[in-house]
Amino acid sequence: MTSQETPSESGGCPVPDLDEMTLREKVGQLVGAFVGSMGDVELSVDDAAALVREEGVGTIAAFGIGVSTYHDPERVAEIANRLQRVALEETRHGIPLLLPVDAVHGHAYVDGATVFPHGLGLAATRNPANARTAGEVTAAEMRATGATLNYGPTCDVARDPRWGRTFETHGESPLLCGAFAGAAVRGLEDDRVSPRVAATAKHFPAYGDPTGGEDAAPVDRSASTVHQLFVPPFVDAIEAGASVVMPCYNSIDGEPAHGSHRYLTELLRERLGFDGAVISDWGGIDHLNEDHSVTASQRGSARLAIDAGLDLISIGRDEYAANLRDLVESGDLSEARIDDAVARILELKASLGLFEDPYVDVETVRSTVGVRPHRSAAAQAARESQTLLENDGVLPLSDTVDSILVAGPNAASLRSQYGGWSVRDPGPDAGTTVLDGITDRARDGTTVRYEQGTTLRERRDLEAVADAAADADVVVVAVGEGWYYHEFGPKQLVGPTGEFPTRAQLELPDAQRELLETVHETGTPLVVVAIAGRPLALSWTADNADALLFSYYPGSEGGDAIADVLFGDHNPAGRLPISVPRSTSELPSAFNRFAHPTPIGADEHPETYDPLYEFGHGESYTDFRTSDLSVDDPRIGPAESITASIDVENVGDRAGDRAVDFFLRDEVSSRVRPVREHVGFERVSLEPGESKTVSVTIPNDALAVTDSRGRTTVEPGAFELSCEGCSTTVVVERTSDGD
Amino acid sequence: MTSQETPSESGGCPVPDLDEMTLREKVGQLVGAFVGSMGDVELSVDDAAALVREEGVGTIAAFGIGVSTYHDPERVAEIANRLQRVALEETRHGIPLLLPVDAVHGHAYVDGATVFPHGLGLAATRNPANARTAGEVTAAEMRATGATLNYGPTCDVARDPRWGRTFETHGESPLLCGAFAGAAVRGLEDDRVSPRVAATAKHFPAYGDPTGGEDAAPVDRSASTVHQLFVPPFVDAIEAGASVVMPCYNSIDGEPAHGSHRYLTELLRERLGFDGAVISDWGGIDHLNEDHSVTASQRGSARLAIDAGLDLISIGRDEYAANLRDLVESGDLSEARIDDAVARILELKASLGLFEDPYVDVETVRSTVGVRPHRSAAAQAARESQTLLENDGVLPLSDTVDSILVAGPNAASLRSQYGGWSVRDPGPDAGTTVLDGITDRARDGTTVRYEQGTTLRERRDLEAVADAAADADVVVVAVGEGWYYHEFGPKQLVGPTGEFPTRAQLELPDAQRELLETVHETGTPLVVVAIAGRPLALSWTADNADALLFSYYPGSEGGDAIADVLFGDHNPAGRLPISVPRSTSELPSAFNRFAHPTPIGADEHPETYDPLYEFGHGESYTDFRTSDLSVDDPRIGPAESITASIDVENVGDRAGDRAVDFFLRDEVSSRVRPVREHVGFERVSLEPGESKTVSVTIPNDALAVTDSRGRTTVEPGAFELSCEGCSTTVVVERTSDGD
Repeated sequence: MTSQETPSESGGCPVPDLDEMTLREKVGQLVGAFVGSMGDVELSVDDAAALVREEGVGTIAAFGIGVSTYHDPERVAEIANRLQRVALEETRHGIPLLLPVDAVHGHAYVDGATVFPHGLGLAATRNPANARTAGEVTAAEMRATGATLNYGPTCDVARDPRWGRTFETHGESPLLCGAFAGAAVRGLEDDRVSPRVAATAKHFPAYGDPTGGEDAAPVDRSASTVHQLFVPPFVDAIEAGASVVMPCYNSIDGEPAHGSHRYLTELLRERLGFDGAVISDWGGIDHLNEDHSVTASQRGSARLAIDAGLDLISIGRDEYAANLRDLVESGDLSEARIDDAVARILELKASLGLFEDPYVDVETVRSTVGVRPHRSAAAQAARESQTLLENDGVLPLSDTVDSILVAGPNAASLRSQYGGWSVRDPGPDAGTTVLDGITDRARDGTTVRYEQGTTLRERRDLEAVADAAADADVVVVAVGEGWYYHEFGPKQLVGPTGEFPTRAQLELPDAQRELLETVHETGTPLVVVAIAGRPLALSWTADNADALLFSYYPGSEGGDAIADVLFGDHNPAGRLPISVPRSTSELPSAFNRFAHPTPIGADEHPETYDPLYEFGHGESYTDFRTSDLSVDDPRIGPAESITASIDVENVGDRAGDRAVDFFLRDEVSSRVRPVREHVGFERVSLEPGESKTVSVTIPNDALAVTDSRGRTTVEPGAFELSCEGCSTTVVVERTSDGD
Repeated sequence: MTSQETPSESGGCPVPDLDEMTLREKVGQLVGAFVGSMGDVELSVDDAAALVREEGVGTIAAFGIGVSTYHDPERVAEIANRLQRVALEETRHGIPLLLPVDAVHGHAYVDGATVFPHGLGLAATRNPANARTAGEVTAAEMRATGATLNYGPTCDVARDPRWGRTFETHGESPLLCGAFAGAAVRGLEDDRVSPRVAATAKHFPAYGDPTGGEDAAPVDRSASTVHQLFVPPFVDAIEAGASVVMPCYNSIDGEPAHGSHRYLTELLRERLGFDGAVISDWGGIDHLNEDHSVTASQRGSARLAIDAGLDLISIGRDEYAANLRDLVESGDLSEARIDDAVARILELKASLGLFEDPYVDVETVRSTVGVRPHRSAAAQAARESQTLLENDGVLPLSDTVDSILVAGPNAASLRSQYGGWSVRDPGPDAGTTVLDGITDRARDGTTVRYEQGTTLRERRDLEAVADAAADADVVVVAVGEGWYYHEFGPKQLVGPTGEFPTRAQLELPDAQRELLETVHETGTPLVVVAIAGRPLALSWTADNADALLFSYYPGSEGGDAIADVLFGDHNPAGRLPISVPRSTSELPSAFNRFAHPTPIGADEHPETYDPLYEFGHGESYTDFRTSDLSVDDPRIGPAESITASIDVENVGDRAGDRAVDFFLRDEVSSRVRPVREHVGFERVSLEPGESKTVSVTIPNDALAVTDSRGRTTVEPGAFELSCEGCSTTVVVERTSDGD
């Protein structure tokens, strides 16, 4: 150990030279471990410390993840310091640890943290500033507890709402997915507000359309579809500065991403130019031999993955460390490739300032985690996400409402508001429920009564609901889904397999449906609030409720946000980032389907995009008029962008925000394209009577056709630009006539 | 006109040299026309004759297709002769016409023709001899009426039962699809039994998995999936001698097949070596500009398609003839490519003997069409297809049954038994219904009563059914689907759009379900016969009926075949060629899904192949025992085939047939493969107590892994071979140790 490497109490070690590191030391940097229970493996903090000390393991996911038992913010900060101390003081080079967490909507596996809406809700705001703020807040709360690598944001595009991870995505529009992922990356990686954390663009290159909606099933889509629908958000996240990319669990065209040179090296490194670290998803390497069966052993999987371009086996532990050493020693894996990976990991640690000081101040954790300004930001995002799908006039609740019945399984459940990838049992102070929000907001003299009626799956006391509803002026029923992740499991967390929510059931379970019918039969106005991670097929509700508010998983501040909308303190302006299907049997239902013939005649053919609620649907308490869609130049050169604008006027009597979506259709192209592509959006605030011109720049590459190799070309010809019922034509000329 | 070219009354013209033909004459050979009404175009026989005379149009679909109004066999033979006479006597070279028909399950658009079960039923027989015989009979009845080109068989593999053409396919196993398509081609193209017709392998390269089950939507599957699941049946059909290949309507990886050089030339001609004619599907060329929008005009579509490798625009008429002439004259299309296409069409006509004699003898048509031996063959196929899904012992009907109630929308409907691609109003003598069959077969003294109960969609008199059921010893209810094609339309043929059958509804409509419940409530034993083109999600029936027989679309002789099974004159042995899902929301449900991880743990993961009835399910009136699965050599070289055998014993007290299916699983492969692949099948007949050893040869290429370019490689390692619950291992060695 050189004098320069002496660890100090305040941290601080130089980055070691690779040629000063033994193979064992190098390989330690390429494997991680966790604290908690995963499969048959259970590891304590002591176990993790031993792996750092004895194997040189360089990455420990000790908290902030689903399998950890540590949630108290000060406790996890102590664990972080303790593990770093082992790394700095008990290993030869004193290389600090990466401490990754799954902070996908706030540092939400830590008690009392600020919990933002999940991705689907954020995208409904049509305001990427919410994702950026969420990233900043998440980074601050993570760093306060010692965590430095966030396994987020997701760049996945959801194409099958049966998929149990739909809620984490930003919906079905590649544009929204890229814009919100990019904003999240900027928020996480920006150290101007607080020390940055590393953001992970996941799950590369495509996860959001697993066959049949089954989690991690093959994304069996054509190459051009993969390139045009799934890859673009990764480009945005990389451009925004994501330090890390995580491959998807899925196979695509027969190749599991974790072992694919084609995807991890040819596409990610060579075509997209990504030079950060590629880190495996939890079981991604084991799956290669255990599930995909493309290798015969862990050793074979390690070799395939590292050769493919992976840098760090996130939970590889001593097992994979031994495999990697053996692979290099036996000549089956080049040490140059190992060095390349180690250099990236050390560079990542250095860029996070960990070689300067990896420790945190446990005393001050609570002055960062879940503080009021953070929660206000989350409340703002939750408010802006609220999407009013139906309203016959019952909302906002009138001053003449004297008694409100609040009912339903999600009316008093912070757990359901959080959704998965969060602590499962948030304390009562960890946020506001719908019932809290309504109770707080109701004016003096208004009675607020609560009857749950049903749990998510089981009837409780519908008679009590019927009686109370008959006596109330309005009934607010919060229905939907609960806490789940991946394929709706594991069952010990979320209930027996096969019970709602399940993959194939997008309809409400009978118990919830009966609760709604019970209220409806009383004749008292029925307001339904859907708290759910997927676009549920709420056909009955659409037909029978007086209002339907889609709230996604709104996070810790969701109850206040929902109450703000119900009482009119906030005029809802969320717009669906994903289509709501009429039934599960009509999937897929995305707005940007590919053009195709209807051989028996278009007249006879049922409309192929006819969901219950279209992408972009969302009502307001005021009325807007949009007009005068125009473009700066209706004839552009093949390398130019489009600048488009449209006038939006608030013609009602209430202030409100309005988001507008712009779509493009290539009238003729050398390859089949979607019937429309989402190419721009903007949200504006308008006072009654106010009018604003909304302008968007549609980048040149939004006009491009994408081929099977991912090459893009803007072809000359006419494009139809549409926005809010207006449309105009832009012609791309054969050669640029601009300057 | 040279003396050699003088047309004679008996036909007979030499094949003209291409250099004696004008561009106009050549181009006429590359376009076809029809008689009937298609879109906005209505053409009479006179109109068609005029196109032959004036434009030199060389192909006329005048009958045997959905749009024609001519169905009488003698009348259509007269039309064939009349049109040929125009071609021979009123055009310069006297080139005879191709007369194509859609004879996909017999020459079924002609009254009184022999109508075989549709493809799905044929595949259930596990006996390709039925497809071969169907081909021979179809060829004979076609040629008797002057038709010479059959637009069949389908080589499509059905992967989404929502698709309205599922019934035409041979199911979800590429092996079955190839074996039955190949057998059909041999039957059609074999001139040893009767003059051959040209068979069309359709729809190349992939149609059977349109997105969402929507007809003609993109088959948006990865390249390796297209090559391994969809292309192989075309290889079989081409090897069997198919003269023609028809592209699919769909786009695949952004390229509509009709305009794809990659699929029609690089894959079909260069890789697969097909040197026959490529003929467009009806609207396939117009779709390029009208729907896929990959060209801006008909002219552009003609150019793209011909350049891609298409030879004949099947309904191009004078419009496309003019486009082709203009393209050549303007230098946008090479005359060499035109010559190449014309040579193929002339060669096809010559190979069919049309230059020798294109005429038919109208007097003798009825001695061929629908004659007893043909119908016996159809009856045999229908019997062998019957698939018993449930039986609690009520079948075969006991001698003590004195009164039978026959009910349901499909009990007395030849139209439903035929299914689409058939005359819509078969006469009463054109086959036997379920009611006919039961009435004929019931022994003296047994009362057979009929109450329809419901139509396909509407309740009629359920009370009458309830009363009659209460009085009966057994009730046979024939439910299912009616006559439809493509996306269940057009509505003027099959009823209003949105009514059953529809794409998204695999469950029985309420009316039929209530009919079943009505009978069930009486307590009288309930036998359900499902006549349907798709695997309906019959969960209620599975739970509540005493027996369930799946009859597919059994064709003209279906009533007798079904009655043979019900009364035990035939012991059912059909096995499902496609999985029957529990519900539409759980699709896809094919047995050969790709392996994939279950990240939250396999224990928690619902079984991903758990249909209502598995691929291969089918019961019998006797019991079989299978044992001693073995292979000739458990270690084989990388280029060798597997010879496998299994003992099948009839351990019951009734003679019966048993089909066995063999599956292979590659334990480790360089690319992700299906969890099992169907690699062999055989059907045997066994007397009570009899035992036979069933042997199959599993060709070497069934072991191969397929890459994105369609290249196949047999990789060394272990394969698990399984059959009827037995399994064994075969190891492919690194180098051949055989001789």
